[in-house]
Amino acid sequence: MAQIFPTERTTLRRLSKRGVFDREQVYTILDEAFICHAGFNDETGRPVVIPTAFGRDNDRLLLHGSAASRMLREFASRVPICVTVTLIDGLVLARSAFHHSINYRSVVVLGEAEKIEDETQKNEALRIITEHLVPGRWNDARPPNGQELKATSVLALDLNEVSAKVRTGGPIDDEEDLGLPVWAGVLPLRLTPGQPIPDGDQPAAPAYISNYRRG
Amino acid sequence: MAQIFPTERTTLRRLSKRGVFDREQVYTILDEAFICHAGFNDETGRPVVIPTAFGRDNDRLLLHGSAASRMLREFASRVPICVTVTLIDGLVLARSAFHHSINYRSVVVLGEAEKIEDETQKNEALRIITEHLVPGRWNDARPPNGQELKATSVLALDLNEVSAKVRTGGPIDDEEDLGLPVWAGVLPLRLTPGQPIPDGDQPAAPAYISNYRRG
Repeated sequence: MAQIFPTERTTLRRLSKRGVFDREQVYTILDEAFICHAGFNDETGRPVVIPTAFGRDNDRLLLHGSAASRMLREFASRVPICVTVTLIDGLVLARSAFHHSINYRSVVVLGEAEKIEDETQKNEALRIITEHLVPGRWNDARPPNGQELKATSVLALDLNEVSAKVRTGGPIDDEEDLGLPVWAGVLPLRLTPGQPIPDGDQPAAPAYISNYRRG
Repeated sequence: MAQIFPTERTTLRRLSKRGVFDREQVYTILDEAFICHAGFNDETGRPVVIPTAFGRDNDRLLLHGSAASRMLREFASRVPICVTVTLIDGLVLARSAFHHSINYRSVVVLGEAEKIEDETQKNEALRIITEHLVPGRWNDARPPNGQELKATSVLALDLNEVSAKVRTGGPIDDEEDLGLPVWAGVLPLRLTPGQPIPDGDQPAAPAYISNYRRG
């Protein structure tokens, strides 16, 4: 898969050893996550950051929401946006407070989104977003009807100006702290499903729900 | 605890039934999370969103990082920032694709951050951030020395212009879909710790690590 070439804006200025510009790694992060934080400027020119679900259609990130959503209407006017996706993998406990850290994988996407107007493409984008959230779900659920498609806005953001940062591994303490009697290591963290909670009287949940896992 | 009065910018325009302006609820969300997404404008005036750890000191949100960090230097110049904190509680599976949703709790904080210069206050802020990440850790780890304090920037953001959104509960399907043979309900999700991974030869992890949980 092609390398992503850092632009002026995605070049990491610090800790560049954490920088990842490999498209395959970026897509693995995007596919394990399902929530992004979308940043844009409001009418006063000040930044606003909103969490929202997303999907990925090859080299495009897909966003959706109510056609009445202020954020999506803003995005459709092709303002600059920044979409950031973060996975938390663990807490890094060093012997010194200073060297504590977090293992994470994050992707930053810069660009302008484009509204998908075509009804067939819109339906396909919603399929991708739904399958991104819960693989296997689209074929079970009732598909959107014409009115629901009209009430939904779908936007696509090209995955051109993209960068990722990854921290993995144990703590990196200073040499002189290694003998301190302080437990050091990593506490792994993972978004884990619990028992499905049926909505009223329901048969057993399908396997794609009861065996759900990300990554 | 005092109500938070919505300002022009924090007034929710849609789905206002999900809006929360109660300070206690906002703080519960902030205290369960430990990662925020900070949005600011870069030198070209376009938004950038970066994940970072945080803490809370009463009515202030605390951010920290390397003194060399471009983001923290920007913040210290009192530019408008938006800090968003999101907890994912579950996937909401409706009978119709259209009514799928996510149970979540999120907080949006708007404002300008202030740099903490005083060394004692800075040390105290780092204690709060460390304890926010891993309660019980500060007394075990080696505290920051003078050089480490100098190498760290700490910023405080007043929790004045704050709003929260919460979605809880099961799917809300249309009446006519309730009889469809589609499993519907909620799949709870939670950030869950795994087994601690020691950094080399270590005694057993302390209870605050082996029994770690958020919320």
